[in-house]
Amino acid sequence: MSLAAVDNTASRDIADAMSRIATAARTAAKDLANAPTAAKNQALGAMARNIRAATDDIIAANAKDLATARANDRPGSFIDRLTLDAGRISAMASGLETIAALADPVGAIETSWDRPNGLKIERVRVPIGVIGIIFESRPNVTADAGALCMKSGNAAILRGGSESFETSAAILDCLQAGLDEAGLNRAAIQMVPTPDRAAVGMMLQGLNGVIDVIVPRGGKSLVGRVQDEARVPVFAHLEGLCHVYVDHSADLDMATAIAVNAKMRRTGICGAAETLLIDASAAERFVTPLTDALIDAHCEVRGDAASQAIDHRIKSATEEDWVTEYLDAIISLKIVDGVDGAIDHIARYGSNHTDSIVADDAETANRFLARVDSAIVLHNASTQFEDGCEFGMGAEIGIATGKLHARGPVALEQLTTFKYMVRGTGQIRP
Amino acid sequence: MSLAAVDNTASRDIADAMSRIATAARTAAKDLANAPTAAKNQALGAMARNIRAATDDIIAANAKDLATARANDRPGSFIDRLTLDAGRISAMASGLETIAALADPVGAIETSWDRPNGLKIERVRVPIGVIGIIFESRPNVTADAGALCMKSGNAAILRGGSESFETSAAILDCLQAGLDEAGLNRAAIQMVPTPDRAAVGMMLQGLNGVIDVIVPRGGKSLVGRVQDEARVPVFAHLEGLCHVYVDHSADLDMATAIAVNAKMRRTGICGAAETLLIDASAAERFVTPLTDALIDAHCEVRGDAASQAIDHRIKSATEEDWVTEYLDAIISLKIVDGVDGAIDHIARYGSNHTDSIVADDAETANRFLARVDSAIVLHNASTQFEDGCEFGMGAEIGIATGKLHARGPVALEQLTTFKYMVRGTGQIRP
Repeated sequence: MSLAAVDNTASRDIADAMSRIATAARTAAKDLANAPTAAKNQALGAMARNIRAATDDIIAANAKDLATARANDRPGSFIDRLTLDAGRISAMASGLETIAALADPVGAIETSWDRPNGLKIERVRVPIGVIGIIFESRPNVTADAGALCMKSGNAAILRGGSESFETSAAILDCLQAGLDEAGLNRAAIQMVPTPDRAAVGMMLQGLNGVIDVIVPRGGKSLVGRVQDEARVPVFAHLEGLCHVYVDHSADLDMATAIAVNAKMRRTGICGAAETLLIDASAAERFVTPLTDALIDAHCEVRGDAASQAIDHRIKSATEEDWVTEYLDAIISLKIVDGVDGAIDHIARYGSNHTDSIVADDAETANRFLARVDSAIVLHNASTQFEDGCEFGMGAEIGIATGKLHARGPVALEQLTTFKYMVRGTGQIRP
Repeated sequence: MSLAAVDNTASRDIADAMSRIATAARTAAKDLANAPTAAKNQALGAMARNIRAATDDIIAANAKDLATARANDRPGSFIDRLTLDAGRISAMASGLETIAALADPVGAIETSWDRPNGLKIERVRVPIGVIGIIFESRPNVTADAGALCMKSGNAAILRGGSESFETSAAILDCLQAGLDEAGLNRAAIQMVPTPDRAAVGMMLQGLNGVIDVIVPRGGKSLVGRVQDEARVPVFAHLEGLCHVYVDHSADLDMATAIAVNAKMRRTGICGAAETLLIDASAAERFVTPLTDALIDAHCEVRGDAASQAIDHRIKSATEEDWVTEYLDAIISLKIVDGVDGAIDHIARYGSNHTDSIVADDAETANRFLARVDSAIVLHNASTQFEDGCEFGMGAEIGIATGKLHARGPVALEQLTTFKYMVRGTGQIRP
């Protein structure tokens, strides 16, 4: 048999497997759409128990993945993301219980009104349908994402990184057993049964109309590929180039606390600030104290010529710095011409994610909030408040920077859509 | 010069023109996003006056288009859609005044809440950005769609059918003059300045990220092409295969009135019913009176074998009939096994548009409303109530059957998206 024939057989096998997954997901989505909240919560509770009970099995599966990753000379950060221990496994189970405790968005009446002819119109939350999750090395995404999709009444098709395959499969067993225990369709959470990359391509094409949305979970190269190639909607952000603008009307102490927190609380999250913009009319007052505080917090400051002229500790920034998501203890600093200068800078270099203004003047703040075209805009608060938990939405599957449907935190409600239910008493249209 | 060189020059010219349109639209979208409601309404009023004043010019431009269309042997229905007279022009102007009278969705606070740490979160309606409208022969779309996009704070890029080019250009002059009069950016409504089809392809690619959404307005082939080829979100419906299901618990008089109205009030609209589903347990009682009423209303009835066995006037339906949007005085009829049989039929053959159940039993009706996955589901009312005006939303740009963002009528609110505005007093994240 020629190599080409082998390849064809392999891709036919993958296509067949994906087709079976798609068919099962479509049926599961129908079943889940009308599943009672109590059954979904029962399944989540059972999943959590199963995961705790299977701790040893999951660790054994994880050891296999870790051995492969080490053999492949993966870097330490990769190994860390991949590694599960009893503590992390317990946290994963607790995460499922947290999701069980969240309100079920399905069936919620968003708005309703009556028409003069007596028709009663309701806009009701319904699940989206089938959600594809494409992720990299963090095996806990299997549980988190699967559970969020299920609780919101959707079927999930998960495709994890090939090097987390064994671990994800062991977790999936616990999830599907939980679905069984609650009498729900176990195909509500499925995993692509092969590490072959061709499966990703098929998912990005939508599996013949079965996948309604793709959620990528991973680094910039994964998200970029998904955004470029997907033929179905994607909920994602490519990067979080978040800004803090300090207006001349700002309280300096507040501005300092916010700038340091926005950058340094955690440097590796998408809501970490990457650029500090300072109002030119207050640069002489603000640049040095802000730089002091950042350097004290062990942050490197790279600024434009105007800021360097004020404070020689500031290193030189290039054009590249304005578009760099450092995800590290480095911040770029630019002097801008008031709030409109900040708005222009963010429009040119920002990523429509999260941006904050520090200002005492309410009109200036409102101008910033209205004109910065980002999913989340803040006044006098740290950009690191950008996640679903901090918004009070509970667990989230990610942050989206697209224009439509889901902007900002993608939590349970954002994993649903709506339909109009209209009730009449025999109305016909004149 | 070779033909290839001519072609290359021509496509470079089109690419240059589209690039200029894109740049102007991006700026106009920023300007419009923060334009006061009063200015937008002033522009709409001026547009209406300009159109009325330019009636003769518009009719003269329309005469040129009609001459081309006749020379191209276009069918009568095409000529009718293309033709403008003083009455239609006046109606177009009135339509703009209607849009001026509608509430401005921009800036509306959809929901707001406070966090325990004192952060105040608001979800605020904002324009989407730049909307591409691709339409066929109806030149009034220039005014309707342009005005709806503008009122909702968006910039519109219009691309009409080549045979309505002169008429659309004459209307566009009136719209842009109205924008000028209100001090708004005239690039808020632009038209592709060439009938060349390459421009459509560029729009479907999104003009390098400038176009946020495409709205196709036209027949199934246009919508199908846009849905297949667009790399940006599309608000549209491919077809309206709407169903009326008559449950055994239905009041027969009500069912008859609704079935006849849903099919025959206007047969050419997307909300017209195409298939009548009758509960098997009431078929003996219901088939003949419903067929009577439909035939009396001059509707051809094509049914399955079971219905033909009850009433010999029913012609024979084939599998093809269940997926045919007749848009004509023809209805298909099928006996189904109760409400679940209806739900299954609609899941298999429907178009996720608008479906209605006639039933006295509330539980049965609720089951239908919950399980039929269509943008609009009705109980005891005609499917022809499916439009934005009947929903009380005012003018609409179309009906969408996609899962996300806009489902059902796409009116002013659906032409906006949202962002989160968060106001604090110096909060930093612990």
